[in-house]
Amino acid sequence: MITQSSYAVGVDLGGTNIKLGIVSEKGKIIKKTVVPAKAEDGPDMVIKQIIYGINILFNKNKAELAGIGIGAPGIVSNKKGTVEYPPNLPGWKKINLGSIIKKEFNTKVLVENDANAAAIGEMIFGAGKNIGSFVMITLGTGVGGAIVFNRKLFRGEHGGAGEVGHTTINYKGEKCNCGSYGCIETYAGNSYLIRRVKKDLNKFPGSLIWDLIDKNPRNLSPKIIHAAALKGDRLAASVIHNLGFHLGSALSSVSNLLNISTFIIGGGVAGFGSPLFKTIKETMTQRVLTPLRPEIKVIPAKLRNDAGIKGASSLIFYNS
Amino acid sequence: MITQSSYAVGVDLGGTNIKLGIVSEKGKIIKKTVVPAKAEDGPDMVIKQIIYGINILFNKNKAELAGIGIGAPGIVSNKKGTVEYPPNLPGWKKINLGSIIKKEFNTKVLVENDANAAAIGEMIFGAGKNIGSFVMITLGTGVGGAIVFNRKLFRGEHGGAGEVGHTTINYKGEKCNCGSYGCIETYAGNSYLIRRVKKDLNKFPGSLIWDLIDKNPRNLSPKIIHAAALKGDRLAASVIHNLGFHLGSALSSVSNLLNISTFIIGGGVAGFGSPLFKTIKETMTQRVLTPLRPEIKVIPAKLRNDAGIKGASSLIFYNS
Repeated sequence: MITQSSYAVGVDLGGTNIKLGIVSEKGKIIKKTVVPAKAEDGPDMVIKQIIYGINILFNKNKAELAGIGIGAPGIVSNKKGTVEYPPNLPGWKKINLGSIIKKEFNTKVLVENDANAAAIGEMIFGAGKNIGSFVMITLGTGVGGAIVFNRKLFRGEHGGAGEVGHTTINYKGEKCNCGSYGCIETYAGNSYLIRRVKKDLNKFPGSLIWDLIDKNPRNLSPKIIHAAALKGDRLAASVIHNLGFHLGSALSSVSNLLNISTFIIGGGVAGFGSPLFKTIKETMTQRVLTPLRPEIKVIPAKLRNDAGIKGASSLIFYNS
Repeated sequence: MITQSSYAVGVDLGGTNIKLGIVSEKGKIIKKTVVPAKAEDGPDMVIKQIIYGINILFNKNKAELAGIGIGAPGIVSNKKGTVEYPPNLPGWKKINLGSIIKKEFNTKVLVENDANAAAIGEMIFGAGKNIGSFVMITLGTGVGGAIVFNRKLFRGEHGGAGEVGHTTINYKGEKCNCGSYGCIETYAGNSYLIRRVKKDLNKFPGSLIWDLIDKNPRNLSPKIIHAAALKGDRLAASVIHNLGFHLGSALSSVSNLLNISTFIIGGGVAGFGSPLFKTIKETMTQRVLTPLRPEIKVIPAKLRNDAGIKGASSLIFYNS
């Protein structure tokens, strides 16, 4: 039996699916579901799908829930509950998702950018439980980030702070999707990794990667790079080393600027594990300002599966 | 006649001189003095000189002063009042300057890193008077910085936040004094500027700079570069343009990370004026994330002469 107010709904709004769950104050998922976002049918349909998904969870539990937390892509104003121009949701301009969902369910609703929600999730349930200040990095298609300072999200002037992915490591580097040049995202996103391996693969005819992709470079994925590295493949290892070096260089700037020494790293590519974490830490320890050097910590995120649901639900526990 | 508590002493501790002044709540200097730091004689002598300088100012005004603010180089803990390893003060390890001065004068004493003091000075007396959040940059021998968020200094975990000078723009760039590579300080410090002009000067035999330095590159200084640029010299103009481009690239990363859109720029090199400010702003407007683009403001610091004294005194008005 669910006890009063120690449970919240977490909604992880993605471009393909909406993942939803009831999460306990301790971060345990009690019940969960997934519904298709139907993003191609526009914002009204996506909102219908969110409501549909929440209704599945609410069912007989409504009275016992402390609220609904939503992690959304794009520019989110956590104060107003608005979501602007989420990259994978066509047709969305500026929608007050918070007030729409609040009207529907008449309960507390909090909306937050998904990277910020992930950081709050780590702070409340995960690797940041006992850490006052840290920077959260999510490695996936892109490089997301969020700043937690003294157990509070540092949001900046309009809630957009923490864009670690768009700090440059090479001002004359490749053009980034954001319009700038040499952002760490262009050196550490999934597509860069795959492109880099493709480029070098012919120079390593003996690489284990060839077997893992059935000789077809189209089958390349971060998982395959990881699998090859685990088996001692030199190309895969060098790619992971390089990734760590690039990330370490970017995070050194971040650490110097914020005077924050702990970095929590999550997302698919973080699965590269200790070789990646070791290189990031080594690079940072060589590059940050002297007083920070002994303090640098680079640790893996704890919320893996369902990180999105847990992060979103944590908004309710964080604010209440 | 000085009225109760609306005046403070500001102490600007430098490697060569200690500048001191009595400053009004409105930022007006009522009385000031300069004493040699005698840094080569070690910390005890420097502290004696600080006390000597303060005594000159205190004279008959003691009762009317709200306290003493000290801006110091190096790593400063504003909570403890300690100054660690100031680069231009040989023999200093970790000295509790705050408690020494407090014991001597039995009044409120606040010690802050000099870049932070400059930022508070701009916030209280200068260009940041009506601005909630901004990043302060000081261009001199090095590139200093400080972060003001919602009218408070963002200090980070140990008071060292705001080191804009040590954000990298080229992770494979030149080695910086800090041990890292390609920090903006290596592209925007005085010595880089002078080196850059020296390198190119022979390619510009008609440059006005030749006259201004009496044909001797040893006479080069930022002031001469500025003077040449004002007269339309192409080499000088291109150096200033490049400086703005480099700074704009670095500050774009800073703006994306902090979601702060206003940058106040001071220090000697800021005297390059509108061509510099224009290029920084143009570069940033092209490089920051889309929502920030219409918001970017790059404005000159207002405290010029006596910025150090005013910034240090502002610590008292800021905290009290």
